[in-house]
This record gives sequence, structure tokens and C-alpha cells, in this order.
Amino acid sequence: MAKQEKMVDAITSMEEDFAKWYTDVVKKAELASYSSVRGCMVVRPYATALWENIHDDLDRRFKELGHENVMMPMFIPESLLQKEKDHVEGFAPEVAWVTHGGEEELTERLCVRPTSETLFCDHYREIIHSYRDLPKLYNQWCSVVRWEKTTRPFLRTMEFFWQEGHTMHETREEAIAETERMLNVYADFCEQDLAIPVVKGQKTEKEQFAGAQATYTIEALMHDGKALQSGTSHFFGDGFARAFDIKYTARDNSFQYPFQTSWGMSSRIIGAIIMTHGDNNGLVLPPAVAPIQVVIVPIATHKPGVAEKAEELYNRLKAFCRVKLDTTDNSPGWKFAEYEMKGVPLRLEIGPKDIEQNQCVLVRRDNREKTFVSLDTLETAIPEQLQKVRDGLYQSALERREAMTYTAHTLDEIKDIAANKPGFIKAMWCGDRACEDALKEQAGITSRCIPFEQEEIADVCPVCGKKAAKMLYWGKAY
Amino acid sequence: MAKQEKMVDAITSMEEDFAKWYTDVVKKAELASYSSVRGCMVVRPYATALWENIHDDLDRRFKELGHENVMMPMFIPESLLQKEKDHVEGFAPEVAWVTHGGEEELTERLCVRPTSETLFCDHYREIIHSYRDLPKLYNQWCSVVRWEKTTRPFLRTMEFFWQEGHTMHETREEAIAETERMLNVYADFCEQDLAIPVVKGQKTEKEQFAGAQATYTIEALMHDGKALQSGTSHFFGDGFARAFDIKYTARDNSFQYPFQTSWGMSSRIIGAIIMTHGDNNGLVLPPAVAPIQVVIVPIATHKPGVAEKAEELYNRLKAFCRVKLDTTDNSPGWKFAEYEMKGVPLRLEIGPKDIEQNQCVLVRRDNREKTFVSLDTLETAIPEQLQKVRDGLYQSALERREAMTYTAHTLDEIKDIAANKPGFIKAMWCGDRACEDALKEQAGITSRCIPFEQEEIADVCPVCGKKAAKMLYWGKAY
Repeated sequence: MAKQEKMVDAITSMEEDFAKWYTDVVKKAELASYSSVRGCMVVRPYATALWENIHDDLDRRFKELGHENVMMPMFIPESLLQKEKDHVEGFAPEVAWVTHGGEEELTERLCVRPTSETLFCDHYREIIHSYRDLPKLYNQWCSVVRWEKTTRPFLRTMEFFWQEGHTMHETREEAIAETERMLNVYADFCEQDLAIPVVKGQKTEKEQFAGAQATYTIEALMHDGKALQSGTSHFFGDGFARAFDIKYTARDNSFQYPFQTSWGMSSRIIGAIIMTHGDNNGLVLPPAVAPIQVVIVPIATHKPGVAEKAEELYNRLKAFCRVKLDTTDNSPGWKFAEYEMKGVPLRLEIGPKDIEQNQCVLVRRDNREKTFVSLDTLETAIPEQLQKVRDGLYQSALERREAMTYTAHTLDEIKDIAANKPGFIKAMWCGDRACEDALKEQAGITSRCIPFEQEEIADVCPVCGKKAAKMLYWGKAY
Repeated sequence: MAKQEKMVDAITSMEEDFAKWYTDVVKKAELASYSSVRGCMVVRPYATALWENIHDDLDRRFKELGHENVMMPMFIPESLLQKEKDHVEGFAPEVAWVTHGGEEELTERLCVRPTSETLFCDHYREIIHSYRDLPKLYNQWCSVVRWEKTTRPFLRTMEFFWQEGHTMHETREEAIAETERMLNVYADFCEQDLAIPVVKGQKTEKEQFAGAQATYTIEALMHDGKALQSGTSHFFGDGFARAFDIKYTARDNSFQYPFQTSWGMSSRIIGAIIMTHGDNNGLVLPPAVAPIQVVIVPIATHKPGVAEKAEELYNRLKAFCRVKLDTTDNSPGWKFAEYEMKGVPLRLEIGPKDIEQNQCVLVRRDNREKTFVSLDTLETAIPEQLQKVRDGLYQSALERREAMTYTAHTLDEIKDIAANKPGFIKAMWCGDRACEDALKEQAGITSRCIPFEQEEIADVCPVCGKKAAKMLYWGKAY
């Protein structure tokens, strides 16, 4: 009974309080708990399974392109962090410092890695000697730590989980191509597998990664009109290679510095999934990464044959999808609500009447559409319905993003939209940092990216009136 | 040429200097590098792939038994670590302390987890309320840190990789059964998949885990006669539950403390694989976890049809094993040496004469046995040969262990064996800590375990002459 009451207890609606809705979903869908460690979360089994599916999908994509995984130390000696000037300036203020090992005080402080460029470079110096050693296409799965003041589960936590790719190349062109290639991997993963439409583009210099020459990004729009940076890919030129003295013998026998990239996607993406697809009944998961793709709910289990048929279907479905059979004695209505909260993409109901007619009911999580399906065709019908859920989610998210993307021509227009209409704002920009700072100060928005797909909205920068160089996406961001 | 010279450079033989042989193998097989962080290693792609296969195999075993993965914070606040008295005494001297976040000094120090009992208990207090919430069968894959003075790749490093299972149960009996069950999972994994024979038993109180009531262990014997603890499983009773105030409503409505276990296997097991199966040509990997199970080496590739046939075989083999085709222009002899160094279980040679006769040569890594196999039967012949490699490795290791296991009846006999014959020593024990300490001091050996399979060697303890309680395995250990 206690459990039933807990479920009946509805979550805050997103229209009423989006931030509260978010934390309610995180809690009720049993994704994460707060821990006794300030700013760190406990990732519970359901979200861990989700992250494992994200891991497996991305890892397969990386390996197909020739990347290899490695495991680097979690600590960076202070002197190593300081080797690249811009990098240390960007990260030193937000790292955790280890100063003691057991009883003894360390002669040099170690920081817990906030990102691992420096460690990879330290290793690359040791293993890269000749053009034959290039490219090096390494990746690692780990957690990193950044000392954040305010935190929210998945979106911003002191420790978070991610993968970080670090590659070294013979030429500038090859490294830039890798930077673009990996951004495209992220974009395709988001759009195809997570059903999250993204805008691909480049960060302005102000927003780029510490130490990078160029940062590419994919930006997604959440239900509340805020943007979420969902994956980034950086081109470093040979800056780190020079700072770390990584040299190789080139084809012409000269010594050269290799060109470097890094790229990462983190457990933040779970926040993006929640805030892109979730609704007032809870979580909605894209089928490709859902820990449970289909839940079987038997109806009137006391009637002869129902339990057996449900079990038989479970064993059949196991062969081609991630399926759960709920045989607890909770009521069907309670189970419906529970698996809706958990965002299971497809529900299969099977009762005595269905069995008589050799059919079952499939109910989509995204729009609650019901389909009666012959039991003879489940092997094709279920993958079809899962695909429809993915397509439905993508389409809704895309339409919402389009409805929430505004074009502005003047500073007043920008301020008005920023104050009253949550979403993306498309506007021209002269390229000056001063105008970017002005929009932050006057309209409370930041530049999200210079999209690869450019449009010519106007000739001049709406802030300073000078000639416009680029069209930008602006917005409020997580 | 540089590369060839590097390979021709033989490794130190294990008879000459076992420790040097070990580090040579780690380096030449490209398993790990030293890093700029004292005591931490860079796990290179080949060893990372090996660890991923170990992960996947164990993870599947855990999940089949109903365990779920979670991801806990990497930090433990000092006050949380101190909640269980024995536990903190055991671990506090060897933890890394974070004292600063960014510029600010923390009000409470955080240690980097050396193990996560305290974090799991902190979470369990929050989520366990009723007997319906039990059992909780959680596991996590992560790295942990212990501040070690002297380190060696895989065997003892400041940071190491592992899985740690943490479970909670209604009854003492159920928790003890889980402790045994998980030890058996480790033993089966070691014996079947890693081809490493192990002795299963219980640790003496002196050697047990800090805070545990009982520690079970599997002990393997390395090539040099030293023991390596390869996996442990702990029963905690309700000690942590009491310290952390984890209470649940039992079936009779009373409040009860649940019973707890934990169990772990770490990247040390890679050290065990190296030192159990390796030889003077390098690494030898058990097929179940080898990143490359079969390497195809084409012979006389300039002859028509060879490269095409090798490619064709590669595409066929991909369907049922992890295969690599080496098409570089290194000589076959150089390739043989390289993949022997890397411990690839099976080599497939294919040349013009073989093609004429519709056959190929399979060469086992463990004993270099050659078999001519019809190209029509590769789908059965390769799995058969891989199984033979596993069986051969297991048999050799078992015979070596038996030849290096000695039975001792008196203290003089123990001292003599300990001084002159590396290996396990079986001897009786009265059960007193004093006799255990005496053997450490006088013979330089420690108790490895009280084996589950007991033998009655004598009536009395060889140290004190009092009535013997148990037969123990003793030895020198990594």
C-alpha cells in the first residue's frame, strides 16, 4: 500500500514549475539520489542501465571508426596541468586538490582530472616518434571532477561520467576533419538514437574550450526553451604538442609537431533526454537506449492461461528486444502508471479476450496510441512500433524547437524575445566579443553557436550596427 | 627498421630474473606504461581491451544472477569513512585526501574511495525500509585509490580498476550464501575462462578485510611460486548496518538490521594472467578474454591469390571469433614473434601451397603445436583449437601448482621449504594468531587461506604443538 500511495502522488507539472518537475522525474523514475557528498549523486540502477546503453552505442560507433580505448590515471600533478597556459587558466579554479596521501603531505599537489588533455599529451610524448605512429585515435570512459557551486542531477554535478576522445594527427587538415567527423557522430547518435534534434555549429572564441583553437558543438532545445550543449569536439592545432614537446619524424625526415583533437559526451545527455522527451506522466525514453523497451502487463492474471501466455510472450520477445514481464500483484492501472513514469517506450497488454482472439494490445508511451496486433506478427510489429515511438519523439521535439526558434533583427527585438519567449534566437553578429558581452548583460543570453547552416537575416550586427559577419544562435542555457 | 630491432631485442628470461621478465612483458606486449603520476599507470589499448573482455564476461555473470550496476561518488567525506570503527582503522592510513576545491579549503576533508562500503551503506539507509526492499544486489565498476609505497603495474598500483559488489539481505544465512555464491562465480571465471586454477578458502582473522566477519578468497599460484589473491568475497554480518542505522520492517513487523556482503575482483587479475601463463616468448592469453583470438598471417603475399584468400578468411572468421589480419610488409617471422609476444592464442598461416591444397596451418600459442586444417572446416576447427589452448593452459598451470605444493609437518620442515622451494605449503594450524605471526617472522610466509577442502595432515600445530584446528595454505604472496 505504501508503494501504491507513493505512485499515486503525482509529480509537479512542467507548466507549473519546470525545475521541480525535473527533480520529481529524477526521483520518481529512480534515476538518481543525492549523496552525502556535496554535489555528487548516486546514479541508481535504472539510470546506470541507461548510461550503459549510451556507452555501448557510442563505443561501437567509435570503434568502427578505428578508435581504441585506454585508461589513464585519475590524478594530474600540478606541474603537468600548468604546461599549457590557456588550459590551466580555464581549469585551475575548478579542480579538487589532493594534498595528502595517508598521513604524509605531498610534495606536489595532485588534482583530480577535470579533463585529460595533459595526461594524454604526457603519454603521447612517450609513444609518438614517427609519422608511422600517427594517427593515434584514443578514447577513455571515466568520471571527471569540476568544483561546481550549484549542482543538479545529471545537468551539473561535481563528478560526472563521460567519454573523452583524444587524437593526434600528421596534418592540420586531418585533425580538423576528425573534429568534424566526431561532431557528426554525436549529432547522428542524438538524432537517430536519442531522437533529439540538434543544431551543429562552432562556439565563439568566448565560449570555446580552454586551450582549443576551435570548438564545435551540438545544441539541443529543452522543453522549457533553454538550450543544452550536448556534445563538443575541439581542434587544438599543435598548441599542446608544442607545450608538451611531442615531436615526430615526418615523411621528409624533418621534425614536426602533430595536430590534436579532443571530443566528449557526458552523463548530462541523460538530462537532455529527460527534458526533451519527458511529460507530466514522467520520463519518456527513446527506444534505442531504454533499459526496458517493452513491458508486458498481463490483465486478469487469475483467469486460466493468462500467466502462461504472458510468460511465453516474454520468452519470445527476449530474443529481439529488452523486455520485462511484470508479474507482481499490483493492479494493471498501477503498473501502467509505474512504467509510464519510467518512460518505457512500449507496453504490451495481454488478457483473456486477447488470447481468445490471438492478439495483444501495444500502447506507445509517447502518445498513448493503442494498436491491436496479432500474436503471429510480434517479431515485426514490435520493432515497427518502437521505430514509430522514436520517429514520433523526434518529430515532436523538432516541431517544438521550430516553434520556439525566433529570428531577431534589432537589439530591442532580441531583448523582447529573451524576456518573453523561451527558445533559440537567431540573429546576426559582427564577430566582436564586446557585442557578445553586451547581449549577455542586456538580454541575459549567451551565444550557443555559429551554426554550420548559415542564413542571411540582415546585413548588420543588431548590437553595434557594424557589418554582420555571421548568423548566431543565442539563448539561455543549462 | 627501428620497430624490427625493438622486437628482436629479446625479453629477460623468467629463470634469470622473474621481476624483470614481468616488467619486460608488460612493456613489450604494450600493456601498460608508467605515467607522470607516481604509482599510477597508463593502461594501454591492448590491456584495456583485455580488461573490457574481463568486464563483459563478469558483468554478464553478475546480471544473470540478478545483480544491478550503480555508479557511486568517488569521494567519501571523512565523517562517513569513520562510521565503522574497524573499517576506518584499516583504510585511513592509505587513502588520498582532497582538502581543497578550487581556491577554497574544504570544511571537511574528502578521501578518494579506497572501497565503497560506506557509500553503499549511506545509500542503503535511504532506500531500504521493508523486507520487500530486500535483497539489494548492487555492483559497480570503477577505479579506487590506495596510497601504496611501492607499486608494480597491475599487481599493486595506487589507482586500480575493479568491480565491487555490495549486497543487503534479510537473513544471515542468505548473506552467507551470497558470499559463497560470488566466490564461486570468481572461481569459475578464473578456472573456465582464464584457465587459472585456484584454491578456494577462508582468510584467517588476521588477513580478513577491515570490518568483515569473514573473508573468502581464491588464491592462485604464479610461475615463480608466489601466491596471488585473485578475488575476495566478504560477509559483514550486520555490523555496518548497525553503524549506519539501516533498519527495515521485517515480515513480523519488527525492526531489523539487514545482513551485508561485498566482493571484488580487480585489474590485478591481469597480473595473474601474465604470471600464470606467460613464457619466455612473452604473454600467453586465455582465449575467452584475448582481444585477438586468431591472427591471420599471410605467407608470400606477392604470389597471386594469397592476399585475397587471407582477406576472405578474415571476413569469414569475423563472424565467430575476434580475428586480426596482419597485412603489413613485415616478414612472417617478425609477425610470428610479435603475436607471440602479445599472447594471441592461435595463429593462422595461409600461403600459396596451402591454398592449392585448400588448407591452412593453425599454430597454438601455448605449445606451438601445428595443425593442418581444411578450409572447409574452419568454423568447427578454430573453436576446437581455442578450447585446446584453454585446456592446455589450465592443465599446465594445474600441474605446476601441484608440483609446487608441499606438505609440512614440523616447523623445521616449513622453514626449509619456505627458504628453498617456492610454492604453497600445506600445514596444520591451531587457530592462534601468535602462531601465524611466528611463521611470518621465522619463515617469511603468510597464511593464504583455510581451504574449503580440508585434509588432515597431522593432529598438532607445527608451531606450538597444541591441538590442530585447521589445515592452511601458506606462502609468499604478491
